Amino acid sequence: MNKRLETVTNWLKGEDIDVLFINSTENVYYFSNFYTDPHERLMGVLLFKQSEPIFILPAMEVSQLKDAGWQYEIIGYADHENPWDNIEEVIEARDLTKAKKVSFEDGVLTFQRATAFLDLFADAEVIAAEDQLNEMRVVKDSNEIAIMKRAAEMADYGVQIGVNALQEGVTEMEVLAKIEYELKKKGVRDMSFSTMVLFGEKTSDPHGNPGNRELKSGDLVLFDLGVVLDGYCSDITRTVAYRSLTVKQRDIYETVLKAELAAIEASKPGTRIGDLDITARDIITEAGYGDYFPHRLGHGLGINVHEFPSMSHLNGGLLQEGMVYTIEPGVYLPGIGGVRIEDDVLVTNDGCETLTKFPKDLQIIE
Amino acid sequence: MNKRLETVTNWLKGEDIDVLFINSTENVYYFSNFYTDPHERLMGVLLFKQSEPIFILPAMEVSQLKDAGWQYEIIGYADHENPWDNIEEVIEARDLTKAKKVSFEDGVLTFQRATAFLDLFADAEVIAAEDQLNEMRVVKDSNEIAIMKRAAEMADYGVQIGVNALQEGVTEMEVLAKIEYELKKKGVRDMSFSTMVLFGEKTSDPHGNPGNRELKSGDLVLFDLGVVLDGYCSDITRTVAYRSLTVKQRDIYETVLKAELAAIEASKPGTRIGDLDITARDIITEAGYGDYFPHRLGHGLGINVHEFPSMSHLNGGLLQEGMVYTIEPGVYLPGIGGVRIEDDVLVTNDGCETLTKFPKDLQIIE
Repeated sequence: MNKRLETVTNWLKGEDIDVLFINSTENVYYFSNFYTDPHERLMGVLLFKQSEPIFILPAMEVSQLKDAGWQYEIIGYADHENPWDNIEEVIEARDLTKAKKVSFEDGVLTFQRATAFLDLFADAEVIAAEDQLNEMRVVKDSNEIAIMKRAAEMADYGVQIGVNALQEGVTEMEVLAKIEYELKKKGVRDMSFSTMVLFGEKTSDPHGNPGNRELKSGDLVLFDLGVVLDGYCSDITRTVAYRSLTVKQRDIYETVLKAELAAIEASKPGTRIGDLDITARDIITEAGYGDYFPHRLGHGLGINVHEFPSMSHLNGGLLQEGMVYTIEPGVYLPGIGGVRIEDDVLVTNDGCETLTKFPKDLQIIE
Repeated sequence: MNKRLETVTNWLKGEDIDVLFINSTENVYYFSNFYTDPHERLMGVLLFKQSEPIFILPAMEVSQLKDAGWQYEIIGYADHENPWDNIEEVIEARDLTKAKKVSFEDGVLTFQRATAFLDLFADAEVIAAEDQLNEMRVVKDSNEIAIMKRAAEMADYGVQIGVNALQEGVTEMEVLAKIEYELKKKGVRDMSFSTMVLFGEKTSDPHGNPGNRELKSGDLVLFDLGVVLDGYCSDITRTVAYRSLTVKQRDIYETVLKAELAAIEASKPGTRIGDLDITARDIITEAGYGDYFPHRLGHGLGINVHEFPSMSHLNGGLLQEGMVYTIEPGVYLPGIGGVRIEDDVLVTNDGCETLTKFPKDLQIIE
């Protein structure tokens, strides 16, 4: 059994949980090295306290699962079959219908599927697996870090393409198209989320939608993008000025940058996670923009673009070596524009390393 | 209240359901005209048998919700707040803690959220809303059809770009990049799923992954792609030959095309939905390829790329005017190649119209 399967099996033993069902694309990938989105079809891994795991998936994906290296039992079902019948047979064959404790990803599994799963047992208590599995993934190993460095490099490259594409009259969507084109030519199949390119007044909406707004002198330009590489995400934000900017816009930029750098500076093993948000927020509040920083400082990053740890001021956990997360303070002033600066940060043994490396000094593009 | 909200409220009255919580991006859009993916943050609409709806969402998205035309109460919560506290207040204020029946999207809401929701009520029975809501969306109105026609046109355009990009030595990813680039320049922000471009032996895997395979003479080339336009999806597949093809490959192509045309021909109001799959499958089986058509005939299409109706032979429902679905038979022969041909089909009052119109006669690209 690989180390990850061993860790989770030890958890099952420690908690005396008979069966764990995992069905999120992310955790399935983490435990099996098989990455797929089966859409509405059921796919999942059954893990047991006392026997080997079983993978259940649509029959047409079985060969890809084997290619990914899965060495245990596989149940491939056809479109006209009900996979819960197959799962029921497994539970009966392994004599687990009277299991006392069962588990699944409570923040992923739908109520409908949870009900189908629980119906297989006479009277089992549900132990939530969500936090346990997320915690397992929060510290990245060297292989994951190597992939994430490459994903971050691609994100840097995406911003560079975007900056190079800026010219009077170009639209947000044209710049976005160019960024993704160049990334895909380099082999990127999927972006880690819907790419954001915003000009001028549109930058003041933290969740704005790129459209046909044309670039003009004096616009702030905000890029927020990331790629999925070998199943891992990157996520970068940069804001630049086109040709000129006002004193106020410059002040926002310098404030956000100072906040971002301070939070990076504070990133090291043992720091309370929530303190990073507080560090950045204090700087922004002191500069008078506290009301215009409406979101948390960042989020964990890995197979999911948003995962543990949450970089909220409420997070009382401590940073550990190998954690990867975003630091992305922003200030959004209606009518004036928004600035967000975001890096992917890896905690090292005595500090941190930013995986994204695109320059952050204020750039005025001509 | 708009017609859709009225319909669902009438359902609540008929079933005597006090509260319905909707939180899928798709259904929220359908009922509110507000399209967003709040990632792990909670967003949803509370609908009531006897009072007006309430929208709960992250505070930073409130202005966009208003822009989309939402005219009822809105609760915007900050990142550090727990939205379930807000929902609890609403339930208490409306005196519904003793509701007898409550409802939600049982195939969407996670077990964790379902538990949080059910904890608000002393002892409420759960009425599954999933099928009811999916059924509401299955017949498209004229506005939806107009959008879907435009989305289908864009999908046609995408295939044309792909065909034009074929040349000796080009890779699957290069062709894919070119397709998405040209679509995004036309304003498409998101593809409706991860675009597929496969060459040669890779076409024989119905779920293959585009990569660095280079195009060479004698390859089959399979495109499967779609766009999201104003929240609605298109989905097209075409297979062409590059420079030459074998007699066997031609036979597969002609078989799949015959099956596809027969299923389209059978599409009209009153036909049993499952009969379409049977019609196509019989043709493929008779030609000796029955074992190599491992998936259902197609799927409903709309706000979701896979929605009702399922075009499986098991579906005993009847076709109705205004339904939109894909017809996409395929034959995948290991070592020889795969052919899939897919159109988006709209049921009209006396037959059907294919929304995707890219030519289907066998094309040998030089």
